[in-house]
Amino acid sequence: MSPCVSMQIIARLHSGFTDKFGIPRQAGLAQHVTSRVVFEPEYRNPDALRGIEGFSHLWLIWGFDRVHKTGWSPTVRPPRLGGNERVGVFATRSPFRPNPVGLSCVALVRVEWDAPDGPALIVAGADMADGTPVFDIKPYLPYADARPDAAGGYTDSLPERLLAVDFPAALAARLPEETYRALLDILRHDPRPSYQHDPAREYGLSYDGFNVRFRVSDGTLHVFDVLVL
Amino acid sequence: MSPCVSMQIIARLHSGFTDKFGIPRQAGLAQHVTSRVVFEPEYRNPDALRGIEGFSHLWLIWGFDRVHKTGWSPTVRPPRLGGNERVGVFATRSPFRPNPVGLSCVALVRVEWDAPDGPALIVAGADMADGTPVFDIKPYLPYADARPDAAGGYTDSLPERLLAVDFPAALAARLPEETYRALLDILRHDPRPSYQHDPAREYGLSYDGFNVRFRVSDGTLHVFDVLVL
Repeated sequence: MSPCVSMQIIARLHSGFTDKFGIPRQAGLAQHVTSRVVFEPEYRNPDALRGIEGFSHLWLIWGFDRVHKTGWSPTVRPPRLGGNERVGVFATRSPFRPNPVGLSCVALVRVEWDAPDGPALIVAGADMADGTPVFDIKPYLPYADARPDAAGGYTDSLPERLLAVDFPAALAARLPEETYRALLDILRHDPRPSYQHDPAREYGLSYDGFNVRFRVSDGTLHVFDVLVL
Repeated sequence: MSPCVSMQIIARLHSGFTDKFGIPRQAGLAQHVTSRVVFEPEYRNPDALRGIEGFSHLWLIWGFDRVHKTGWSPTVRPPRLGGNERVGVFATRSPFRPNPVGLSCVALVRVEWDAPDGPALIVAGADMADGTPVFDIKPYLPYADARPDAAGGYTDSLPERLLAVDFPAALAARLPEETYRALLDILRHDPRPSYQHDPAREYGLSYDGFNVRFRVSDGTLHVFDVLVL
């Protein structure tokens, strides 16, 4: 076995995603999804965040803690390729990797300096479940990290298709404004597994204490109920 | 203490930097610096790299294994701020962080599929010492990772000043072409500690088995000797 190194959990991310279903496939896709990064007690130190508000974006390095510990797979089937083509795990951002570590670029919305469990970070666009352990937070450095001309392999030729979302006003009215806006963002990215295309199939997506029921047909997602969890 | 998680070393990066002195301050600054990522025997699997050649850039998540294990510091003094202003560690890419993990965007030059210790990756622009442990390799996804308009905090107002490099042809002739080009790249980024400005001071930078001796005055770096190590 290879040698290993231990990493401390320095924080946990709290989001509206108690289930895996609905979590955006990459960070930044759902900009109206906000999350809160709460440091573990020994890392609650305002000094450690001095100057962070000058950065619009941050990197989170975190653990896929819901991946079953069945070992890694050399190849995986990315949803982006329809879920039926195998690609090497190091050519994907799949969780089923030797070290189940995630990397997400999130927008820094604000620092809650004076929260009882603070300082905490409010971030937008995270693709992470509620309770996700965080190992590191780094500033996004545009001069080193932004490569807009990079070739993105199979992701270049497959731009994500967005759905139209039909969210009846009477159902939307059951939700706080912020939850509604986040849900619109989540739903338009098509949370369904890529191999499911049955227009009669009913889905339930849990977010922020609500369960949103929908069907998808002809490129439109129709919300037909909103339940309180 | 916070709970911790163990990470396997999946690979080691081999570069010309046997010393810390001269390592670029961020990935991507010295594009002519190439390195070789060699997988640990149990991860030498060509399947795991299938499709990776479609990506021009990769993320390496790696360990700062030369940081003394003296614990983390809430504030650090980034070289970019002249080394005399303190900033929160999470607002920097300093190695002196709770988990000494580095994040580098490197260009993928080629895959050595058939090397005896392969498949191995040749990458350009790494800011890592020879032997650095690697925990993960991910494709750079421009649609998720490229944020050219991001605000870069204190790094925005302080563009790096490049030095002119006076490298006499007779000394350059002692070096392989690739080593010479990498050294030009390294030297123009001014490897000196930011608080040193003595034009008489002599420096020796080791790279790829050579030691390059230089002085810096008036924005020009003068190479005066090249020794074989």
